[in-house]
Amino acid sequence: MMFKKRTNADEAKKLFLEAVKPLSGHELLPIADCDGRSIARDVTAGIDVPHYRRAAMDGFAVRASDTMGAGSSSPVIFKQGQHIEKGVCVKVHTGSPVPQGADAVVILEDTVSYDGNIEIYTQIHPLKNVGDIGEDVRKGDVILRKGQRIRPCDIAVLASLGINNIKVAGKPLVAIIPTGEELVPRGKRELKVGEVYETNGLMASLYSRKWGGIPRLLDIVTDDPEKIKQAITSNLDADMFIISGGTSVGRRDYVPGVVGSMGNLLVHGVGISPGKPTALGIINGKPVVCMPGYPVAGIVALYWFARPALRKLGNLPDEPDRVVRAMLSEKIPSRTGYKTFARVKLDNGKAIPLATSGAGILSSVSKADGFVIIPENIEGLSAGEKVEVILIE
Amino acid sequence: MMFKKRTNADEAKKLFLEAVKPLSGHELLPIADCDGRSIARDVTAGIDVPHYRRAAMDGFAVRASDTMGAGSSSPVIFKQGQHIEKGVCVKVHTGSPVPQGADAVVILEDTVSYDGNIEIYTQIHPLKNVGDIGEDVRKGDVILRKGQRIRPCDIAVLASLGINNIKVAGKPLVAIIPTGEELVPRGKRELKVGEVYETNGLMASLYSRKWGGIPRLLDIVTDDPEKIKQAITSNLDADMFIISGGTSVGRRDYVPGVVGSMGNLLVHGVGISPGKPTALGIINGKPVVCMPGYPVAGIVALYWFARPALRKLGNLPDEPDRVVRAMLSEKIPSRTGYKTFARVKLDNGKAIPLATSGAGILSSVSKADGFVIIPENIEGLSAGEKVEVILIE
Repeated sequence: MMFKKRTNADEAKKLFLEAVKPLSGHELLPIADCDGRSIARDVTAGIDVPHYRRAAMDGFAVRASDTMGAGSSSPVIFKQGQHIEKGVCVKVHTGSPVPQGADAVVILEDTVSYDGNIEIYTQIHPLKNVGDIGEDVRKGDVILRKGQRIRPCDIAVLASLGINNIKVAGKPLVAIIPTGEELVPRGKRELKVGEVYETNGLMASLYSRKWGGIPRLLDIVTDDPEKIKQAITSNLDADMFIISGGTSVGRRDYVPGVVGSMGNLLVHGVGISPGKPTALGIINGKPVVCMPGYPVAGIVALYWFARPALRKLGNLPDEPDRVVRAMLSEKIPSRTGYKTFARVKLDNGKAIPLATSGAGILSSVSKADGFVIIPENIEGLSAGEKVEVILIE
Repeated sequence: MMFKKRTNADEAKKLFLEAVKPLSGHELLPIADCDGRSIARDVTAGIDVPHYRRAAMDGFAVRASDTMGAGSSSPVIFKQGQHIEKGVCVKVHTGSPVPQGADAVVILEDTVSYDGNIEIYTQIHPLKNVGDIGEDVRKGDVILRKGQRIRPCDIAVLASLGINNIKVAGKPLVAIIPTGEELVPRGKRELKVGEVYETNGLMASLYSRKWGGIPRLLDIVTDDPEKIKQAITSNLDADMFIISGGTSVGRRDYVPGVVGSMGNLLVHGVGISPGKPTALGIINGKPVVCMPGYPVAGIVALYWFARPALRKLGNLPDEPDRVVRAMLSEKIPSRTGYKTFARVKLDNGKAIPLATSGAGILSSVSKADGFVIIPENIEGLSAGEKVEVILIE
């Protein structure tokens, strides 16, 4: 088997994402459980907030027109009462209702209480220090729109409207299939020569969860096309597949062939480094990311392909990465034609490239704070260059 | 009651954080549950990874010295066998053990299988295409350091070492006390005039959870100093308090006084806008954030004070915000002496200030994508200025 052809990283992503269709399912959840979820329907306010005219400050509610002529040396004198009428003011505090007939609030600091009367030292205009009905939200306003990611502050707005439950888009179910005859389940027993613990499937599960999916990590499948096929067939209820390992062009690299035989193999071989053996396909309308078994290549494939696919499936907007600007402490080599994900460590404003021998060095990701992405048309970066480091989550 | 004095935003944060002591508790968790947690102890590798010399490519294992003189037009001819000896090579694939006696791997592409023999067309040096023992991780290496935030890629490294459980720092328990006689529990019944649904406590709970704490949202407490004191006293098992409302200088603003009477009121009145009535204190060694009842001021106090305090308590490093650079579509006014958090909406590279009448407009946060922070020494920003927008999570 050979790579079909090497596809440019951006083209491969575009081709893949075009084939990913957002899920249409939704669920009704208590608002407190909706942080990070995607709104499934526009949400409209059923009430005004506030639903009464409220004082915005502590002070005295008045008819604004009664303060005409008041000034810092010429107070207008009011009586304090329970109901508004000409020359009568009513004490209010922030948030309390402005009494019938009043249209403004004089703040405490502009008044003096003297001999049972209230002296008001400022002339105010109607609605001064008053929160009018619907000032915050008007009944009928669209408060949250379909496809928005919900944040705690949005949930607070829903709560202010008395809304208890909302419809959110369903989370994509991601079936994760680790393949490789050298793999043994982690932590079960000591390793023999030729064996390694399974880690890529675990890593793909945790990133899938972080990015809004529900991971289903399946048992390790050996390098056998029939068994790989069967693992896919028995999980066709999933919305997406991530298959780890077996994506290269060696004797035991059956995964892209299996994907092609069951659906549409869109891409095999991508201009990303590390990550060239990545394959992408669609089976039964469901996106399939075949991540290389080499863990560093694997994480690049997850970031570059699995994350945007998961978000699109889950109706979530793309989220900007956390980025730190830094100065390269040493040059980083790269090959033209490949979008290169160089691992760097951050130290005091410097980005220190992690010298590693290759994509097989899992610990080099763990040592890295982030990636510097070097575009295809550039041959390496020089020491001293300013770079943006995309933090690895 | 008066503001003690208005403290500069950065000074207030510094003063407060100096009084916050990281928690010393920890818990032992399965590694798959540790995403986002803080490592409680340095983790050392108990095995080498790989623990055997492995092939880094598909091909033939050889003694490198036997390939001497091979070239693209002058192959050295090997026999294929099961054991290495002079002139004999052994087929290997990526990840499989390199057989005893071999020290290098010739990749498949540099060989031709012909007439039962293997022709090798390249001369290679020892360790070529071989991953040596400990190449990824050496037994005894410190893999993760105390205080690191754990990511999925770090968990993968732990898995590669056969580690099943690790010690992580405990999560801070945050007691959240909403105060205000106008508040009613959300969604229970329709509002009467003068009532609003409780939202700040809910919002503080959700942000506390997002930032690594365990929220305990308490019942609404009315504006009564004894009841506020009692709510604190009965939750002294918490590691931190967030009290919402009653922080200003009005007749019913008892919260700072209560904090001062029970512990140390460090700050009351901060040079942030909105958020001036914020108060900060320490009770029984536990940080207390008194967030203003006005929701926009409240969220600013959560971001500026509660988040770093929570992280410090939880032994988590500070995390850079997600930032988007944009051009201001309109000017934003601000007052010197106040660090101003202006809410903006992002649209196609533009940051559009949200015109709002004040800190009471909860929906203005929900409409905002982020904050533009205007420093104390600047009086507003002009239309057309390049700004960094800190996305609201």
